[in-house]
Amino acid sequence: MRLSRYFLPVLKENPAEAQIVSHRLMLRAGMIKQAQAGIYSWLPLGYKVLRNVEAIVHQEQQRAGHIPLLMPTLQSADLWRESGRYDAYGEEMLRITDRQGRDMLYGPTNEELITDIFRSHVSSYKDLPLTLYHIQWKFRDEIRPRFGVMRGREFLMKDGYNFDVDYEAAMRAYDRHMVSYLRTYERMGLKAIPMRADSGPIGGEDTHEFLVLADTGESEVFYDAAITDLTLGDRAVDYDDAAQLRSICEEWTTPYARTDETHDESLFDAIPEDRRKSSRGIEVGQIFYFGTKYSDPLNAAVQTADGGKVPVHMGSHGIGVSRLLGAIIEASHDDKGIIWPEGVTPFHCGIVNLRQGDEAADAECNRIYAALVAAGLEPLYDDTNERAGGKFATMDLIGLPWRITVGPRGLKNGVVELTSRRTGESEELSPEAAVQKVAEIYAPHLAAAAIL
Amino acid sequence: MRLSRYFLPVLKENPAEAQIVSHRLMLRAGMIKQAQAGIYSWLPLGYKVLRNVEAIVHQEQQRAGHIPLLMPTLQSADLWRESGRYDAYGEEMLRITDRQGRDMLYGPTNEELITDIFRSHVSSYKDLPLTLYHIQWKFRDEIRPRFGVMRGREFLMKDGYNFDVDYEAAMRAYDRHMVSYLRTYERMGLKAIPMRADSGPIGGEDTHEFLVLADTGESEVFYDAAITDLTLGDRAVDYDDAAQLRSICEEWTTPYARTDETHDESLFDAIPEDRRKSSRGIEVGQIFYFGTKYSDPLNAAVQTADGGKVPVHMGSHGIGVSRLLGAIIEASHDDKGIIWPEGVTPFHCGIVNLRQGDEAADAECNRIYAALVAAGLEPLYDDTNERAGGKFATMDLIGLPWRITVGPRGLKNGVVELTSRRTGESEELSPEAAVQKVAEIYAPHLAAAAIL
Repeated sequence: MRLSRYFLPVLKENPAEAQIVSHRLMLRAGMIKQAQAGIYSWLPLGYKVLRNVEAIVHQEQQRAGHIPLLMPTLQSADLWRESGRYDAYGEEMLRITDRQGRDMLYGPTNEELITDIFRSHVSSYKDLPLTLYHIQWKFRDEIRPRFGVMRGREFLMKDGYNFDVDYEAAMRAYDRHMVSYLRTYERMGLKAIPMRADSGPIGGEDTHEFLVLADTGESEVFYDAAITDLTLGDRAVDYDDAAQLRSICEEWTTPYARTDETHDESLFDAIPEDRRKSSRGIEVGQIFYFGTKYSDPLNAAVQTADGGKVPVHMGSHGIGVSRLLGAIIEASHDDKGIIWPEGVTPFHCGIVNLRQGDEAADAECNRIYAALVAAGLEPLYDDTNERAGGKFATMDLIGLPWRITVGPRGLKNGVVELTSRRTGESEELSPEAAVQKVAEIYAPHLAAAAIL
Repeated sequence: MRLSRYFLPVLKENPAEAQIVSHRLMLRAGMIKQAQAGIYSWLPLGYKVLRNVEAIVHQEQQRAGHIPLLMPTLQSADLWRESGRYDAYGEEMLRITDRQGRDMLYGPTNEELITDIFRSHVSSYKDLPLTLYHIQWKFRDEIRPRFGVMRGREFLMKDGYNFDVDYEAAMRAYDRHMVSYLRTYERMGLKAIPMRADSGPIGGEDTHEFLVLADTGESEVFYDAAITDLTLGDRAVDYDDAAQLRSICEEWTTPYARTDETHDESLFDAIPEDRRKSSRGIEVGQIFYFGTKYSDPLNAAVQTADGGKVPVHMGSHGIGVSRLLGAIIEASHDDKGIIWPEGVTPFHCGIVNLRQGDEAADAECNRIYAALVAAGLEPLYDDTNERAGGKFATMDLIGLPWRITVGPRGLKNGVVELTSRRTGESEELSPEAAVQKVAEIYAPHLAAAAIL
């Protein structure tokens, strides 16, 4: 993309309404614009990152064998009356009446609707295991929406639901979700820690929340520092290998890590003091086994191998897709702006032309642009007449991890400058070597995106 | 995808509620399930086609230089009061009150919101031309939703908006849209004819609707048969070349083609009789120049080169993304089921194993599967124990354009069968040759999808 043809309305001033850094930077970088309280338009740059985050979630869910579909945003109140939640849900549910006087609601979650789909089409254990998921807009009418997309009212969420014949099979789905979530966050450059959470009044036995450590988090968390060293790296995961999944889950759930809701002082005090940490955390996902809580009232049962009939064991598993953009920025920024991890960056590499209109500089920028595209990458070329300082400030603000700077002086020596946004370090390279290096940096990210 | 692991709930019986063939086939092929009147869940197969259609729309819009963003589904009533449409819109607008008593609505279209984004960030002619678009769920509270996704209440639409400094520039945007729409429909295997339409009470000067000819269409259309022979084929389109765009638009708008709203008997009668056609049509898109209808009341103006200030000239341009699935099926099916055009098919090729459990047949199916994936294609492998007749019936119903059939008898002679869904013709080929042929068929479609 050439900046002269793009729509990137960056702000010079800090917007007064933003209380936390991610909200401030998303506004300043021209990523979002508030439409009304807790509801945002995603401007082109923000939309690109949202799509990148969404794509990683899709890829890792499908890698785990989970099947995408799409349920509508509006739901019938009748289904929620069947489960008993229509009256129980409270004021966060946006209730709507259509022109025929029918009660509807803007879905805050989808247990009822997915169970209705399941019970209409599946009646045998032979069709299990089955995990269906979607990524769809949800609405929760927060009394005090705040922190930009971190606590909005209209938000994008991945919610997935497993259907299994018994507890043991449902636990394999639980493990599959935990591992796929670990991979998902790692590809986004995030350290998200699974923490034993409170199942609350719903009363499921097993649930973990995934929290990103950040000062602005709304939750207080306690953990053994050993857990932050864990990484999946490029180990091969076979989602059909239940034993492998179990061992990965044990690796991540053995070190102490809990939110304040489930915190246990005596267990915490048993950790060696130098590893005992408390911090703030942002919740970016949750996995939850709840057994037959919905299959019982909604009558979703399957025939078993021995001819009996049992309600399916279910769980629901969520990732806050739009919220993740805020969490990533909270975890990765500096005074100059955002620092995108390579996995989610809106453009892979910036190109800054120091002397727009200079024949050699223009030609070299065009060559570099074409070479990056040929390598499967998407560059953002600042081809405007802005002065160099302004161009650098914009690139730093919007946070592209790599920048190639092209100017007449360097070109006389056959070099351009390749700069890392994260370290600020630059090196002089031939244009070909700079493109080659950027392509090598992104190669594992492009490979991870191919899941067919 | 292996069918044994997929969720494809096909129906054996014709559902009673479906009045038209596309609705019937979408239900039978397990593509959709009604959630409530005019609101559908997109089951895995339907969701895949929806994403494919959406991807083509994105690619062709971005190829034309139009910039994607995403506006929310819910909008504030206040903006619609500014434009005067809140009271004017009528009962099709779904009006909502939140817990704070604020008036909101589920967006049926986005002229107000996009104009608000524009006026907040753009104030100079130097930032024009600019076309922003999004693909988002809309809601129109139809009194009588029917025909499945063809006339639903919650529907997915691409709506784009051009902002230009004067009428002439806005007409270039109009041409860009017409050509990009022609390409879009052609890639989906559709013949969609641009027809001069009625601008209605809005009173814009220029508008064309795109109609797909089908007996079940809701519009009556009149046209010169010559227009159905026109095709863009693989001609190179340069969206910066206004003269080329104009000449393509003239090619398509010269032959007579109008809906009943603008039909002119005397012009129609001047067409040679053998080319004079009337038919039914399904509207799948519309382009619309409306000048300063929204920029005037919403005060969206830009500074001009000579220091003056003018309201921007706008147009809005829509494609009915979810409706297109119905239109494609109406235009492409037979007694056995759907016949997907290669451009949108949910899976590129079916693999039918005639003797599941036969060692040689299983191994060959696995090899063919891997070879298709290696060619960048997505196969659907029926690895179930269903008998051959049932497997063929399912493949015919869900409409994959190509099928490779593998059985022990053919393998003794080193051949498999490659079958075209459209013609029903089969040929015996070596497995390698069959894969090679399928890969060649899809090569132009994969190439068209790459737009960076």
